[in-house]
Amino acid sequence: MDAKNRTSRAPLARRTSGQPAAIDRRTFLARSAGIAGAAAAGMAAPEAVAQALESVPPWMQTMGAPMRGYGQPSKFEEKVLRTLTPGYPTIAPGAGTSRTPHHLLEGTITPSGLHFERHHNGVPAIDPAGHRLMIHGLVSKPLVFTMDALERYPMTSRVCFLECAGNSNANSVSPKPAQSSAGAIHGLLSCTEWTGVPLSLLLKEAGVAAGADWILAEGADAVAMSRSVPLSKALDDAMIALYQNGERLRPEQGYPIRLLLPGWEGNMSVKWLRRIKVTQGPTHTKDETSKYTDPLPDGKALQFTFEMGVKSVITRPSVGQKMPGRGWQEISGLAWSGAGRIRKAEVSMDGGATWTEAALQGPIIAKSLTRFRLPWEWNGTRVQLQSRAIDEKGNVQPTREALLSKMAPQQRYHNHSIQTWAIDADGSVTNVYL
Amino acid sequence: MDAKNRTSRAPLARRTSGQPAAIDRRTFLARSAGIAGAAAAGMAAPEAVAQALESVPPWMQTMGAPMRGYGQPSKFEEKVLRTLTPGYPTIAPGAGTSRTPHHLLEGTITPSGLHFERHHNGVPAIDPAGHRLMIHGLVSKPLVFTMDALERYPMTSRVCFLECAGNSNANSVSPKPAQSSAGAIHGLLSCTEWTGVPLSLLLKEAGVAAGADWILAEGADAVAMSRSVPLSKALDDAMIALYQNGERLRPEQGYPIRLLLPGWEGNMSVKWLRRIKVTQGPTHTKDETSKYTDPLPDGKALQFTFEMGVKSVITRPSVGQKMPGRGWQEISGLAWSGAGRIRKAEVSMDGGATWTEAALQGPIIAKSLTRFRLPWEWNGTRVQLQSRAIDEKGNVQPTREALLSKMAPQQRYHNHSIQTWAIDADGSVTNVYL
Repeated sequence: MDAKNRTSRAPLARRTSGQPAAIDRRTFLARSAGIAGAAAAGMAAPEAVAQALESVPPWMQTMGAPMRGYGQPSKFEEKVLRTLTPGYPTIAPGAGTSRTPHHLLEGTITPSGLHFERHHNGVPAIDPAGHRLMIHGLVSKPLVFTMDALERYPMTSRVCFLECAGNSNANSVSPKPAQSSAGAIHGLLSCTEWTGVPLSLLLKEAGVAAGADWILAEGADAVAMSRSVPLSKALDDAMIALYQNGERLRPEQGYPIRLLLPGWEGNMSVKWLRRIKVTQGPTHTKDETSKYTDPLPDGKALQFTFEMGVKSVITRPSVGQKMPGRGWQEISGLAWSGAGRIRKAEVSMDGGATWTEAALQGPIIAKSLTRFRLPWEWNGTRVQLQSRAIDEKGNVQPTREALLSKMAPQQRYHNHSIQTWAIDADGSVTNVYL
Repeated sequence: MDAKNRTSRAPLARRTSGQPAAIDRRTFLARSAGIAGAAAAGMAAPEAVAQALESVPPWMQTMGAPMRGYGQPSKFEEKVLRTLTPGYPTIAPGAGTSRTPHHLLEGTITPSGLHFERHHNGVPAIDPAGHRLMIHGLVSKPLVFTMDALERYPMTSRVCFLECAGNSNANSVSPKPAQSSAGAIHGLLSCTEWTGVPLSLLLKEAGVAAGADWILAEGADAVAMSRSVPLSKALDDAMIALYQNGERLRPEQGYPIRLLLPGWEGNMSVKWLRRIKVTQGPTHTKDETSKYTDPLPDGKALQFTFEMGVKSVITRPSVGQKMPGRGWQEISGLAWSGAGRIRKAEVSMDGGATWTEAALQGPIIAKSLTRFRLPWEWNGTRVQLQSRAIDEKGNVQPTREALLSKMAPQQRYHNHSIQTWAIDADGSVTNVYL
């Protein structure tokens, strides 16, 4: 596909229903008069511009700060932080999660400092000089790699999302809708550029024995978090990642190396990767029996549900934000699928009765976040806002009701259902169950 | 093009000359035996693996660190910093540059903390609540925008590089080749994802008057850095950027807003943007007469050379690195062009006599950095390593000699010529002029 910005050339919205709310960019402009004017605090624009031009702000009257070796966000953005949700603070302060504040972000790349965390026993402080990656088990030639040795291998880069299997589970287990931000509910999800060595290359060098069909991946944290992965995935697009968004991995993302399994539930992309054991059959580790299985209504449980479902969420407007007023504004959200590329994102203002197609920001990359946008004129009445994603395989994001009917009540994983934000007449936004 | 990782499916190199150095990935594997083994410090691999498995490192014997609101790099990466080069430290400590350490990075996204800086009077500490963008001059309706007002407009995202016009000028003005890192020489170059409002949308709302053909863009730093931009560019792909790599702009990148002119010399993407004045003809500001003009051999000077030339640089190996030994390793570098997409990157081991095509990492995005890679077997002899980029318009990166012949000796801008790194028999890397 054309990698150039598509939305600057195509209408932003195509009407697929009878509602008049969605428009293209030209119409937005024609009807948006007053957005800039609203900034002028009641003055006519020419006077407001003249006054603004004459006003010399304090930061133009002093020398600025010098260059720095490593930059940080503005002090005026100090509240843009990950949402911390420790799991078991009394026994293991490093066990829990932190979530990406998507309601405060735009675009699709997550800055590494805001990439979500999920640790089972905190972040180990690994000296790369002392770290090793072992490949052993059903191989003809066991191998051990220093980090320097890995740097000599051919590398590859890709942008992809990571999503924790437990993302959005507030909408599964809370009897009443949690009045939390889009990031607090759906922020166990991030998207960055990863660079590293294709795992297939190292496995071929080790020589996989006949009959082997799974691998075990184990981390170097103190709980040795470990998961079983089908060999077919390991030989497909799995990567031993060394770099994230250009620089070496952050400690909380697995420094110095992690396994990366694009599109699959996040914790399988084992951080602080220490060894890969080639096996026959899965290992059934503690981390894939006590956790990361999906209880079903009939009392059984699904194990090894790896691929993350097609999903989307509107990040603006969302809970914690207040509509800036009636009139034109842009709806903005994220869509993604573990199965590949996003084909379509649709928006409903009436709780799913009718849908309007949103514009997708290109380039659309498989197993990555895709930003969708839709200009919209809010007339000040109550609205039930939803988004629905469809991927290139034809998978359609389900309603909450349809999804939960297939799960046991205690099921905490794989909620990829449609999120509903209700906008009230006063402009406040709430999470609602339909 | 297919956004999936191309290099995992295609041969990494295609031979275009008689040299035997470049190979595809399968051949790399067949011949690379010993890279992993080299890690085992002389032990046979099975024993090394067994010993590594039994060794429990200290970080597996203690609880790890808890989650954090905003992550930072590992303490073991504390030397991965921008290279600081103040320009006039005695009179203006905030005037100068800092450069992206490309020799320590991989992939194509630059983390915002390492994006290069070029300030004419330091970084102003702007409170977004007090900042305004004015659009005035030859318009039918002058406008003033608060930052909140801008947030209501349709946005667009794109990944693109920014490069200072003065990048790589050490290779223009140093009589002897500077023995500086790839980042110190070529690091006034970075690449991030930008999100904001198309400038064309705001100009259309203001109503550009007949006869207007340029704009003036002015920043809110204390020197009011300002540049003239043809109206055609302002109406094409120019953006009022609010977000970088997902979060709000960093202070040193123009917080709360900057102009973004993809593919054009960096300082035209005016930071801390305060006003846009629509004009007839260019304004000839101090920043485009005393600086940012190109002296020619005949004593005249070229003004308004906006588009950055097609260019590439090998980041590994480069000065300051030492070859890890003979045998297989990967050459990795960056290619880019202000004119559009990179079509081809070639590597020479013999100072430009013969060339081998490198693999380009997809997706290839217009006016963005493109990573190229080539596995290579170094036999321990002296090599003169070069890369050469060709863009979709057919522009070919020139040799240093060809480029400098068209410039006055004091010309400091727009050096996009081929970089030569010499590798000596001892594995050391030096910058050489051919």
